[in-house]
Amino acid sequence: MRIELSEAVGSLLEQDDILILSHQFPDGDTLGSACALCRGLQQVGKRVRMDCSDDIPVKYSYMFDGIVTEDFLPRYVVAVDIADKKLLGKRLEDEWGDKIDLCIDHHGSNVYYAKKSWVDSAASATAELIYDMLPLMGACYDEAIARDLYTGITTDTGCFRYSNTTSKTHRIAAHLIDLGVNAAEINRWMFETKTRPRMELERQVLDNLQYFHGGLCAIIYITQEMLEKSGATEGDLEGLAPIPRQIRGVKIGITLREKEDGSFKVSVRTADGIDACAICARMGGGGHKAAAGCNLASGLEQAICVMAQLAGEALIQEGFIKG
Amino acid sequence: MRIELSEAVGSLLEQDDILILSHQFPDGDTLGSACALCRGLQQVGKRVRMDCSDDIPVKYSYMFDGIVTEDFLPRYVVAVDIADKKLLGKRLEDEWGDKIDLCIDHHGSNVYYAKKSWVDSAASATAELIYDMLPLMGACYDEAIARDLYTGITTDTGCFRYSNTTSKTHRIAAHLIDLGVNAAEINRWMFETKTRPRMELERQVLDNLQYFHGGLCAIIYITQEMLEKSGATEGDLEGLAPIPRQIRGVKIGITLREKEDGSFKVSVRTADGIDACAICARMGGGGHKAAAGCNLASGLEQAICVMAQLAGEALIQEGFIKG
Repeated sequence: MRIELSEAVGSLLEQDDILILSHQFPDGDTLGSACALCRGLQQVGKRVRMDCSDDIPVKYSYMFDGIVTEDFLPRYVVAVDIADKKLLGKRLEDEWGDKIDLCIDHHGSNVYYAKKSWVDSAASATAELIYDMLPLMGACYDEAIARDLYTGITTDTGCFRYSNTTSKTHRIAAHLIDLGVNAAEINRWMFETKTRPRMELERQVLDNLQYFHGGLCAIIYITQEMLEKSGATEGDLEGLAPIPRQIRGVKIGITLREKEDGSFKVSVRTADGIDACAICARMGGGGHKAAAGCNLASGLEQAICVMAQLAGEALIQEGFIKG
Repeated sequence: MRIELSEAVGSLLEQDDILILSHQFPDGDTLGSACALCRGLQQVGKRVRMDCSDDIPVKYSYMFDGIVTEDFLPRYVVAVDIADKKLLGKRLEDEWGDKIDLCIDHHGSNVYYAKKSWVDSAASATAELIYDMLPLMGACYDEAIARDLYTGITTDTGCFRYSNTTSKTHRIAAHLIDLGVNAAEINRWMFETKTRPRMELERQVLDNLQYFHGGLCAIIYITQEMLEKSGATEGDLEGLAPIPRQIRGVKIGITLREKEDGSFKVSVRTADGIDACAICARMGGGGHKAAAGCNLASGLEQAICVMAQLAGEALIQEGFIKG
């Protein structure tokens, strides 16, 4: 059943022993929303705990500071920022997938798997919805809540950069800053901090940047050897795939990442209506129109050759170059 | 003479044939502020034109769309976002340096070189000050003004990331978005699009990245030779200065840029309360607490040595390393 803000608040206030779930591969919004809601419900006397199928990345652990929870058998289960029960991850889906009482979410793709769902796809982040709920629940915005909500909003909007950012998003951010949030510190932590191995990897990646088709296509690669030499880990790879497409004039940006078995995970980003998903589908992959992926078993040289060829065909098809 | 908002507005309204000057190496704020002020003054019937010692980078040219100016002998000269007449650049400093009637600026380091100066260092960008002026001047915020002001604010705050961003900054951004600004498009253009020469320059810069003081200080440099080889122009340099400070653990990030005469323009970015302005003041420079600059006449090796030394002393003073 689809519900609105006031009913979501009413439902929560009627309940106790509440479990709040975040999605797998947790990000700033699912965790920030869960933490802020947990704090607010505890303020008004509820027993609350949180869970997530995956470990909380160190990057986000500060949001949990000062939250004390105890173990109990939940009588009410809330999913925050989760569009589909499959996104709970296996452990939580098995346990709670069919027993979600309330879903609070901002994804237009929400499949309404919960008993009650408050979904507002105009919100930049689920944290915006929690921001609206708290005063109606009788909770106060304290500094920790403000910080958790700010984290949710800034991470889901790419620091107010993406098109999901509205004037309301900025007004909420203004209020949260007035409440004492150290926004610059959070943003620095989330967006500006790169490890030394990451910088080294970036250097190597720029060293191997290649242009094709008169600069309409750019390809970079990351090999196992580069990962080893730089000492980079999984978290250091975030944000590398978009690099080739960020170059002015590039319509198709391709990033090849060598897996441990020597095969390549390919990420394709496109501009101006070129269908990344169609390019990747030709190699058995898929994704969205502007960002898709596929796997290639071939060696590096051949993988580059194949992808440059596919990119060229897409550029011909869209009329950017002549066949 | 230091003045406030109302007197700045009063002074402008009394005058006509107004020349608005932007600083050399123009950025989004000095140009956005100039364009928005020019549009506002033209709205209320003034004859206005703008000037800058350097060419307008292509990146910012959209802010000038639709502005029609004619040539005239200025009777009133306004400097926007210019802390010191030296920053006018040679051509404009020679012509107008001692004849600036009004300075509108947000730099705490402003040296009050103008006849009247309205300086508010609490503002994230000079564009915030222009935003406050326009309605008092009787001008309306139109979509072009809103876009120019948003550009000034987003570029000077690193898209609401830096510590100069206040709740007021966000409230202004909210209003500008309500006025129709396509914020996502501006931010993509400003922050996510890089030219091929810029990518090449970035590669070379990462190649020369050096760490000092156990990784608490990082230094990069850009020489004239690098600029020539990469084909980079002025606009391609933006966003390079913050790179060293973005590395995890780095408290002081320093970027040295060789000027045509072989001297170096130094940019210092700091974290955790280290005073960048104090570091640069020792070499005759200035700026903000977390971002400042100075000039060094020495050669590259010596410039690196001097800055590493100054950084070390600041780190000792703040207790990050032992003396």
